[in-house]
Amino acid sequence: MSILQHTGAPAQFAMEKLRESCIKHGPLCIGLDTDPSYLPPEVLRLYAHPSDAVLAYNKGIIEATGENAGCYKVQIAYYEAQGIKGLSAYAETLRMVRNAGHPVIADIKRGDIADTAKAYARAHFSGEFEADIITLNPYMGFDTLEPFLEYVKTHKKGAFVLLRTSNPGMKDIEQQVLQSGNRVLDAVGSELSRIASVFAQDSHQGISPVGALQGCPAGISPVGAVVGCTEESDARLLRDSYPNIFFLIPGYGAQGGAARIASTLLEKAGGTVNSSRAILTAWKKTAALEFKRSASNLTMNDIVQAAAQEAFASKTELTKT
Amino acid sequence: MSILQHTGAPAQFAMEKLRESCIKHGPLCIGLDTDPSYLPPEVLRLYAHPSDAVLAYNKGIIEATGENAGCYKVQIAYYEAQGIKGLSAYAETLRMVRNAGHPVIADIKRGDIADTAKAYARAHFSGEFEADIITLNPYMGFDTLEPFLEYVKTHKKGAFVLLRTSNPGMKDIEQQVLQSGNRVLDAVGSELSRIASVFAQDSHQGISPVGALQGCPAGISPVGAVVGCTEESDARLLRDSYPNIFFLIPGYGAQGGAARIASTLLEKAGGTVNSSRAILTAWKKTAALEFKRSASNLTMNDIVQAAAQEAFASKTELTKT
Repeated sequence: MSILQHTGAPAQFAMEKLRESCIKHGPLCIGLDTDPSYLPPEVLRLYAHPSDAVLAYNKGIIEATGENAGCYKVQIAYYEAQGIKGLSAYAETLRMVRNAGHPVIADIKRGDIADTAKAYARAHFSGEFEADIITLNPYMGFDTLEPFLEYVKTHKKGAFVLLRTSNPGMKDIEQQVLQSGNRVLDAVGSELSRIASVFAQDSHQGISPVGALQGCPAGISPVGAVVGCTEESDARLLRDSYPNIFFLIPGYGAQGGAARIASTLLEKAGGTVNSSRAILTAWKKTAALEFKRSASNLTMNDIVQAAAQEAFASKTELTKT
Repeated sequence: MSILQHTGAPAQFAMEKLRESCIKHGPLCIGLDTDPSYLPPEVLRLYAHPSDAVLAYNKGIIEATGENAGCYKVQIAYYEAQGIKGLSAYAETLRMVRNAGHPVIADIKRGDIADTAKAYARAHFSGEFEADIITLNPYMGFDTLEPFLEYVKTHKKGAFVLLRTSNPGMKDIEQQVLQSGNRVLDAVGSELSRIASVFAQDSHQGISPVGALQGCPAGISPVGAVVGCTEESDARLLRDSYPNIFFLIPGYGAQGGAARIASTLLEKAGGTVNSSRAILTAWKKTAALEFKRSASNLTMNDIVQAAAQEAFASKTELTKT
């Protein structure tokens, strides 16, 4: 056993497990960004606290979509907005996904220095809020990633670093052109390539095995990138520039990104395509529920089934393109 | 009453209240980044849970330092690392500071898009985790600031946006030079100036009064910036470039920033200088406690008194330079 393999650490990097799950179940990442306002009032009021309803909805969705989800992503903001009860529902949601054997991404977009970054790493890679993979904001510099990379190395955890987000404001900083001619996001990408090569080197030395990948001799990097599917030209450029980096792809579904662009980003190392709101609010658009909807008579089971159908439709669209 | 003044909103912007408090009590911002490991084991074990000890320590410090603190800053990472119990202690710490009448900054460095940013704004400007002022990461673009600015406008809350942080990695993105010749951090600074002028304009129209400030005809902006006190030349440049922006200044004390540089940053609109670890772990260096320390015999009162003395010493140093 190598010095870097801790007792109890899984044999496989979380990013490899995620990739295998996406090959098996399709590339859809179901986003449990479950704001209570996404549930119909008649369902919400059956529960003592909005977070109880959120948790029951999440549970139903996880049980009903296992075969159609490559993974689940939980956006912590919606749970923080519900205070302590909300964060208990957050912890329980992570546990439910992990207990069901699916990879879970904690969308936390944290980023801070030194001991503070260490505290965030402890917070989200161990204990009550333990996730397999987290999202990180690199703005304060690449030293802020290091405490998280330690967990990637020793506990086979994973991280997605913000590279090219799907919001219009990405032009303000990420897209800005540097004197070198590169964009700010290329500086982040270069660092992710460097991190990938360090892990690949470890792999050659037998320290931390990284699975081989067709077209990517170095294998898939345990550290991925967030790349929104909102512009075809950028999607092509980024996919070709970072062949061994797995992408977390927001901007599909409610955010308006096309499945065609997602399919570009899914080439090479691949990726997982997030859909949150379109799934969570599918009950609002399900024809079969029109009568119950107009009578404010929906049940938890109705909205779970609508979400599961939308997930299946999304998976089908993403798989055929 | 103007359309933008909601019932129950305070008369004054949080940033103005903070500035007045710093004039009255000195510019020290006491950082309650209270990791349980900062407490001696013999004190920790008197409590059922590490977070109970943290909360008792925070309470003692708040009560003992009120006259010497311009404000308190609570770094959420250390509380997240303790799970639900930790976040209950976080909520209670914010309440204690606000109930004592001091301004409280939630150091959360959040940043996300659209509805997610709205959820974070709700999470930290209302409910159990309500703070007066929060820190924000602008990396994903300036549209990500908007949901927070709504609360600044309607609830007179405040935000410090990351401008120039105190870690070595700040060179990786913040310090990068753009084709325009400006650094990335200047793009953030320009946006903060634009935000300041929008609020100043509102003020001229009598919508949201912003206090006048000598040398800053526009008054102090309700949205401040995080500027580390680690380089004199940059401190001078940034202070002169953003005369009406109040600074949150990390990097003093345990992080090694000099009081002299802080004094540059305290000119014009002014700022508040954070010290966290040097205060929280002052018991380790207090000569009078040497005997009790060596006998592992410290009490909660001992460590609170050591923290209070260190806070007083820091305030004195910051005030005389």
